[in-house]
Amino acid sequence: MSEALPAITLEPIGIVRSEIKEPIRRKSEDVVSEIIVDSSLTEALDNLEEFSHIIVLYWIHRSRRPAPKKVHPMGNPEHALMGVFATRSPDRPNPVGKSTARLLRRRDNVLTVQGLDAIDGTPVIDIKPYIPGYDSVDNARAPSWMVKQ
Amino acid sequence: MSEALPAITLEPIGIVRSEIKEPIRRKSEDVVSEIIVDSSLTEALDNLEEFSHIIVLYWIHRSRRPAPKKVHPMGNPEHALMGVFATRSPDRPNPVGKSTARLLRRRDNVLTVQGLDAIDGTPVIDIKPYIPGYDSVDNARAPSWMVKQ
Repeated sequence: MSEALPAITLEPIGIVRSEIKEPIRRKSEDVVSEIIVDSSLTEALDNLEEFSHIIVLYWIHRSRRPAPKKVHPMGNPEHALMGVFATRSPDRPNPVGKSTARLLRRRDNVLTVQGLDAIDGTPVIDIKPYIPGYDSVDNARAPSWMVKQ
Repeated sequence: MSEALPAITLEPIGIVRSEIKEPIRRKSEDVVSEIIVDSSLTEALDNLEEFSHIIVLYWIHRSRRPAPKKVHPMGNPEHALMGVFATRSPDRPNPVGKSTARLLRRRDNVLTVQGLDAIDGTPVIDIKPYIPGYDSVDNARAPSWMVKQ
């Protein structure tokens, strides 16, 4: 595939500022952090405050490279090894994270968010509004080992 | 920001095969398409079939470059210009798409999916399981111009 398709180059649009400095597994629901967007893109954030939640795509810069093909879900060795694409492991072929966060405040190029699952210094790739009905699925099925704990 | 943070390089992990050949706005809910994953990553797909839905991140290779900072939502000029990060426009600083699709079938390195919002030839960046409760938000608020139509 790498022979057929050219590599993709992204320029980070911003960076995460958080009190969480190390990639430890934790509940991030209550963590309040900031996304500092490049000031050249401030006007591209206009209207975002009309949404209660945003989807953030980010580069998991502290992930393990090269990525394993199988991992223990949630890093728990009591779980059997699973294909990495069937997990949300940060160690994956293209370590791009996707997290949905509550948008508490926007001030110019600074977003204050709650529940962003990304540590301090994480490069941000994209910010999208969360759209009920488009981003959510009714009656989706997930195995018991993966259902939110 | 581009001075402070290095560029990010991604290698596509697969490609979309679809009857939709051109980037026209349309309902994709009923479209059935395939994701052909690089055969070196086949085992990384193991266990994915335990999930009913997957999240696909992909490179919107036909997007407009350079990206505008303001766009008319849904490409409809009757809508006022909005900051591009407040929309799901394909024309964005890093044109990475995020679509949730129903996983109909997995055969080795080929996934058959329904509702993937990506055209034929789209390079795939990542595949993640959709996790109810983690990926969905209860009572999220979106402005009326954006609510799914």
